[in-house]
Amino acid sequence: MSNTIEEIVREQARAAKEASRRLAVTSSAVKDAALRAMAEALEENAAKILEANAEDMAAAREKGTPRAMLDRLMLDEKRIHGMADGLRQTAMLPDPIGEGEMETIRPNGLEIRRVKVPIGVIGIIYEARPNVTADAAALCLKSGNAVLLRGGSEALQSNRAVSRVLVEAAEKAGMPKGALQFIDSASRDAVGVMMNLTGLLDVIIPRGGAGLIRRVVTESAVPVIETGAGICHTFVDEGADLDMALRIALNAKTSRPAVCNAMETILVHEGVAKEFLPKMAKAMREKDVELRGDEAARAAVPDMAAATEEDWATEYDDLILSVKVVKSLDEAIAHINRYNTGHSETIVTNDLNRAQRFQREVDAAAIYVNASTRFTDGFEFGFGAEIGISTQKLHARGPMGLNELTSTKYLIFGEGQIRS
Amino acid sequence: MSNTIEEIVREQARAAKEASRRLAVTSSAVKDAALRAMAEALEENAAKILEANAEDMAAAREKGTPRAMLDRLMLDEKRIHGMADGLRQTAMLPDPIGEGEMETIRPNGLEIRRVKVPIGVIGIIYEARPNVTADAAALCLKSGNAVLLRGGSEALQSNRAVSRVLVEAAEKAGMPKGALQFIDSASRDAVGVMMNLTGLLDVIIPRGGAGLIRRVVTESAVPVIETGAGICHTFVDEGADLDMALRIALNAKTSRPAVCNAMETILVHEGVAKEFLPKMAKAMREKDVELRGDEAARAAVPDMAAATEEDWATEYDDLILSVKVVKSLDEAIAHINRYNTGHSETIVTNDLNRAQRFQREVDAAAIYVNASTRFTDGFEFGFGAEIGISTQKLHARGPMGLNELTSTKYLIFGEGQIRS
Repeated sequence: MSNTIEEIVREQARAAKEASRRLAVTSSAVKDAALRAMAEALEENAAKILEANAEDMAAAREKGTPRAMLDRLMLDEKRIHGMADGLRQTAMLPDPIGEGEMETIRPNGLEIRRVKVPIGVIGIIYEARPNVTADAAALCLKSGNAVLLRGGSEALQSNRAVSRVLVEAAEKAGMPKGALQFIDSASRDAVGVMMNLTGLLDVIIPRGGAGLIRRVVTESAVPVIETGAGICHTFVDEGADLDMALRIALNAKTSRPAVCNAMETILVHEGVAKEFLPKMAKAMREKDVELRGDEAARAAVPDMAAATEEDWATEYDDLILSVKVVKSLDEAIAHINRYNTGHSETIVTNDLNRAQRFQREVDAAAIYVNASTRFTDGFEFGFGAEIGISTQKLHARGPMGLNELTSTKYLIFGEGQIRS
Repeated sequence: MSNTIEEIVREQARAAKEASRRLAVTSSAVKDAALRAMAEALEENAAKILEANAEDMAAAREKGTPRAMLDRLMLDEKRIHGMADGLRQTAMLPDPIGEGEMETIRPNGLEIRRVKVPIGVIGIIYEARPNVTADAAALCLKSGNAVLLRGGSEALQSNRAVSRVLVEAAEKAGMPKGALQFIDSASRDAVGVMMNLTGLLDVIIPRGGAGLIRRVVTESAVPVIETGAGICHTFVDEGADLDMALRIALNAKTSRPAVCNAMETILVHEGVAKEFLPKMAKAMREKDVELRGDEAARAAVPDMAAATEEDWATEYDDLILSVKVVKSLDEAIAHINRYNTGHSETIVTNDLNRAQRFQREVDAAAIYVNASTRFTDGFEFGFGAEIGISTQKLHARGPMGLNELTSTKYLIFGEGQIRS
């Protein structure tokens, strides 16, 4: 008699909820020791994990999986050490739980404090990369949250091996039983079940392609933190240092084109378009970037393909760049606010007033002046860790570290006060 | 040719979104002057508003609406002055927008600041009380957010009159056109349309009965902040000051039984049950409170009705109290964490260690020691205002004032930095 996927997942969530109560009052010392034990266990069991990964890789190759995806799926000794290092680094970060956010004594004598507490149970739905299993577990557990992990079916053997090693090490080191749960099933229904676990899951963080994220945002009854969609822009202002603009544009587009903080569209002020665009086109093409421009951009670089309306709204995640010439800062801001996904935007300028207007009026998580959008990242921001980059405005916006995995509680001490 | 409700509401949301861009950079001085002008306009147009309210009242009476609901619907000169005072008080509160939350200079020289910004466009879905129209408008506009209001159909005439007065005064005082939108329709479909306005609405805050809130939480694709469900507990510990416990219990149950921070269940330690329960039963009954107890409670107060499993999970919002005797602090905490809605809980105790354990281990927005749960309120907490009490863990938990109506933005200044 086998249980349905709904029963299995719901039971795991119930166990995670139960564990979350104990985890919320588990000391930093125990949590950190557990993370270090988990790191050691990963390294000790590397052979077993690599064996499981080899099965996933063989199945993926057989299915004709694209090389980029195979690369994300692949584990080796070095990547396992990387996962272990991530766990050890998370252990060294300060524990946010219990930190005071405000404190007040009211006229009636009530002492009110707001302190950070864990969110409770966090559901993570992710694709392809098995190292997310360790990274997400580390951040959730360190911040006192139980976690229910649902990885992609193509990485099932790898994720199963990694999660077994982690769960065993965590419980042996004194973490509450059930705090780390992995959904050991390739069934796509698991995602549907998770999205309806209101009362058991406190939040779902989807990490993966746009399709997955859209589905979870639209369908989930459990609150969702939307991450990772990035149509990022660079605006080259009139009077900008054009050498700097070129360095920033090249970095934003080509240093890692598949990530969410890479640039997709460059906007160039008409006053510098004729000088800047031919140089930029040459440099981008040397890096194999395909250019798609509006009419004015094509006037400056005649052999550029024509951009369509769809281009402005597309996250290429690839060596493609759309190019638009704008008449003014206002036009640049309006274009960005129309097409962006609220991730990262940058202006290259020497004009302080326009820099400030760009920062005030553009609606996004991170707004740069004279720097590459590629810096939007929990490590680059100094958080020491990152569970994802929120592109929504509620709860957390931008890179999410340990602080963003917390909620709050008001603790109030009285001496018998009643309300009149 | 009439437009569908979907077209109308979507167009209003689009106009609100457009206005929200300008509102986000509108100065505190303009916003505050507008709130004061709106207050004045309400008082000047009191006669017109009362006339519209009289129509709603007549229709409601005809339909046989219960008296409690009629009372919530009713406006008079005093209530209109109350709405105006609320607007003026909100004008006097500090503006959270632009406030710095953190600032860091990274080793590569990037200067990163996180500042408070408006959320964008807030949808409020509310029932019965027309004063919410003014209160919600004041808080949203002050915090730089455009707002799309959807009131109950029974208050349509009143809400229409109030919102027209407010919109005219706000725009005349320099607020961006379209920042305050009222859905002037009794169609229930309007709620369904709002819940699908992703990309236009940034958040929906439902204010009203459990049915409305459940529907919005389950169905909305737009993020929701859940408010107002309150199954609140008082735990009377062994060794507690029983006179204090009685005062707190009476206040928590009877001072305003229909509100969300009122007590629904009292838990009494078995060591004090025999002494406390008969006194409590007498005092509660003098206030017309119906008692429903478990077996042990009924042993101490024989003429108490029997509580069923359903009682522990019910928010009566009425003069009914469920009573349970527990063997230990652990049992009290377990009962609360099983049945509460994450709102407010209190322990009456003289034992510091048990007070601390209660605060640490109970999972709720506000956890009291020796005070009434009735204090959970934005005004009592010193926020100067309140849009609702969040019972969820994301974004905001507990009373929500102006700060809770903000998001954040990272502003980064560089000098040409690129990421290696």
